[in-house]
Amino acid sequence: MAVSLKSLAQQIRAELIGDGDIEIHSVNTLEEAKPGQISFLANPKYVKQLETTQASAVIVASSVKFDRLPLLKSKEPYYAFTQAVVALHGYRKHPFQGIHAEAHIDPSATIGEGTIIYPGVFIGPRVKIGRDCVLHPNVVVYEDCIIGDRVLIHANSVIGSDGFGFATVQGIHHKIPQVGKVVLEDDVEIGACSTLDRAALGSTVIGKGSKVGNLNAIGHNVRIGEHALIIAQVGIAGSVRIGHHCTMAGQVGVAGHLKIGNNVTLGAQTGVIEDIPDQSTFIGAPAMPAQQARRVYSLFTQLPDLLSRIKQLEQKVEELSTPDNAGEQTQ
Amino acid sequence: MAVSLKSLAQQIRAELIGDGDIEIHSVNTLEEAKPGQISFLANPKYVKQLETTQASAVIVASSVKFDRLPLLKSKEPYYAFTQAVVALHGYRKHPFQGIHAEAHIDPSATIGEGTIIYPGVFIGPRVKIGRDCVLHPNVVVYEDCIIGDRVLIHANSVIGSDGFGFATVQGIHHKIPQVGKVVLEDDVEIGACSTLDRAALGSTVIGKGSKVGNLNAIGHNVRIGEHALIIAQVGIAGSVRIGHHCTMAGQVGVAGHLKIGNNVTLGAQTGVIEDIPDQSTFIGAPAMPAQQARRVYSLFTQLPDLLSRIKQLEQKVEELSTPDNAGEQTQ
Amino acid sequence: MAVSLKSLAQQIRAELIGDGDIEIHSVNTLEEAKPGQISFLANPKYVKQLETTQASAVIVASSVKFDRLPLLKSKEPYYAFTQAVVALHGYRKHPFQGIHAEAHIDPSATIGEGTIIYPGVFIGPRVKIGRDCVLHPNVVVYEDCIIGDRVLIHANSVIGSDGFGFATVQGIHHKIPQVGKVVLEDDVEIGACSTLDRAALGSTVIGKGSKVGNLNAIGHNVRIGEHALIIAQVGIAGSVRIGHHCTMAGQVGVAGHLKIGNNVTLGAQTGVIEDIPDQSTFIGAPAMPAQQARRVYSLFTQLPDLLSRIKQLEQKVEELSTPDNAGEQTQ
Repeated sequence: MAVSLKSLAQQIRAELIGDGDIEIHSVNTLEEAKPGQISFLANPKYVKQLETTQASAVIVASSVKFDRLPLLKSKEPYYAFTQAVVALHGYRKHPFQGIHAEAHIDPSATIGEGTIIYPGVFIGPRVKIGRDCVLHPNVVVYEDCIIGDRVLIHANSVIGSDGFGFATVQGIHHKIPQVGKVVLEDDVEIGACSTLDRAALGSTVIGKGSKVGNLNAIGHNVRIGEHALIIAQVGIAGSVRIGHHCTMAGQVGVAGHLKIGNNVTLGAQTGVIEDIPDQSTFIGAPAMPAQQARRVYSLFTQLPDLLSRIKQLEQKVEELSTPDNAGEQTQ
Repeated sequence: MAVSLKSLAQQIRAELIGDGDIEIHSVNTLEEAKPGQISFLANPKYVKQLETTQASAVIVASSVKFDRLPLLKSKEPYYAFTQAVVALHGYRKHPFQGIHAEAHIDPSATIGEGTIIYPGVFIGPRVKIGRDCVLHPNVVVYEDCIIGDRVLIHANSVIGSDGFGFATVQGIHHKIPQVGKVVLEDDVEIGACSTLDRAALGSTVIGKGSKVGNLNAIGHNVRIGEHALIIAQVGIAGSVRIGHHCTMAGQVGVAGHLKIGNNVTLGAQTGVIEDIPDQSTFIGAPAMPAQQARRVYSLFTQLPDLLSRIKQLEQKVEELSTPDNAGEQTQ
Repeated sequence: MAVSLKSLAQQIRAELIGDGDIEIHSVNTLEEAKPGQISFLANPKYVKQLETTQASAVIVASSVKFDRLPLLKSKEPYYAFTQAVVALHGYRKHPFQGIHAEAHIDPSATIGEGTIIYPGVFIGPRVKIGRDCVLHPNVVVYEDCIIGDRVLIHANSVIGSDGFGFATVQGIHHKIPQVGKVVLEDDVEIGACSTLDRAALGSTVIGKGSKVGNLNAIGHNVRIGEHALIIAQVGIAGSVRIGHHCTMAGQVGVAGHLKIGNNVTLGAQTGVIEDIPDQSTFIGAPAMPAQQARRVYSLFTQLPDLLSRIKQLEQKVEELSTPDNAGEQTQ
């Protein structure tokens, strides 16, 4: 679907600098782009990358100056790039519409119009799925779960498996029936091979617009607010409450029953063992405010230096404490 | 299935305090319960939560005193709660019995009576599965694995995939055929999207009554004793031996060939690189006895303070070492 | 398939010490071997294990001396063991050939001769798969991905799910269509329940001969060189470049856009936040060169001792600073 650069600039509301008549048919990285493709400079610092690209044009931040190539300048260049990908490539074209015959749908489940269900998907009893969702192959949705509109679930993820709940008596673990459910609100995306456990009682909830990547383990009765980004391999133990607009990078772990505020960012591999206040960035295991964590981890890697300084102090103090030396110094 | 509170008290062997004639039809959390529901106070410290609940009755520890609501008191309140959930809700009602037509069972596999196998499950050659098991959708069991009675495996888990075994010669990794198997003893539960690798030779074994949650990676030739709790995203490398009644919290990692004793508890994100003795609790990466770990991590987060103290000492010692100052002080 | 020990020695190019006429039918561990089986001594230090084994013969390193049992000596004993397993057990015998009727293959996909595709596998539009591959049950390959020859993918892994790419504008996460693909080069093996995200643009690439274990999350646009070993639960964020012959142990995390050199080894749970040079071994979170990391972590576990030494210094310096004491010492 080739368009003129001028037309593309209008579509993505970018400022055109240079020849607007060239034809653009697709998007590619700066390294791999060929003539006829438009690319994207993610970081204005790396403007030198524009010198070697074969792209016919590049989307850049407004501040970038470079005149060998036509540019599309935007105050939100990442979003402009996103719109260009949508304009030139569109979203995934599915090879069929509706519910594939090789999916298994319980007769008591209800599924909204426009929803696409791939082969190998299992939808359990009484599940409700909204409109315009996509469930990729081999997704499993256990009984009673509720899925909103425009929800996208990638292959082999599991929605509504039993929470890890056992009552241990004299060394034997007795299963607590997990009689709750999972609720995915509108516009949620779930990656591949993630597991979202049903609540013991009540609901495990993923808030509207939240995006959960691959291989995440969301425990029973967890509530994640709206517009979260849970990237990959994150583990959230049971009954954790998470506010809106939180970001959790890869391999974060959150212990059970904690409260995480709104607009919280957790760095990769962070281990959360206490509540986290609103508007904060925490890093490290155990989780610390980012500024403290940077100092702590910097000193951590310098522990051998600290030991040297302690040893030197010990030697000097030993010298000072020895009468002869002290005597010499005070003469 | 509504019952009188009096009758429920008898079923779960709890002491009834208050009106035993009220009807209870289900269980819910303190926050979400409505009249007609019974709830559960997990922690006697939070007795104030009883003031606002709409539950008609609450299961509590024997020590709790509160008179606005009928109570069921128990010395094992968590187990009493479990029994109440079973009594009022029962275990999962499966939408069919036996082996679903959309599962794929190798003709040489044997499957015991009462076992339920969901659509999309694959059972390989010569697999043996006992009685009254449940294999949820898309579980895969590779050839020769042995599964006991009353084993429950959640969706998309894999039993018996190849161990990670390669012999590297001149930079090329040659696959070692993994000719062993996996044995799941009676009453084991496996969560969703967990992988249990077959042994290179012999067996990978999960002991009777052990519960393995979601997204755990159990390596080849690992042996986990009876009644373990392996919660989520735990990685256990090849040939590790684990005793009975061990608990491993989320994201624990255990290096290969180690021995972990009986009744061992490992905190979340613990990294085990040495054997762990019986009856111990270890935390941290590297794993330390819990008491040591708490001191170490407390000091870790205070490293900037330690640095300040070292700097102050350096300054004072410098002053003491300077003849003038030393002279002043000794005058 | 029983063979004489003499014949086996020739097949695996080992030196025969002892009776070459005994018959060997299979391989087993030293602990579990019975007469008629050959075993393997992994570590020459544990030569005492040979005293109690019931194996009829043992493969050992050339340096091992022991005369109660026939031995097969090899300079590459682990590879000799591998060859013995292949000779006596062979690779997996699949219960069928070709593409199973219960797999779902898009009509536009192409699949090479000798490739085996198990039930429940989904192959999307325009996927290309080479010769002699094995895709175990419920593997999902999204559209446009390219898989070389002799590639093995274990059950429930996902190739080509969408990368985690969103442009956030005013708190709303807008999906960036992921229009790239995944390329698995020849002789790659992927474990169970791993996810390899398609590139946003261009390709995510796993190099020839690389082995990726279970539950790994490989992000969009990652490029892993030839002959890597990525063991389990490793997370590699978007656009990371990794050289050839790298090894990443369990639960390693690598932040986005980093470059990791050739022949790099990363210890378990390592957290990589900076580029890593060629030929190096890094450990820890944050990742440090192994030698530094060992000193740092050793001091880390001794932090309470460091604190004691600081306190002692403070006390001594306090004493030295006090005129009376100082006076005493200089008298």
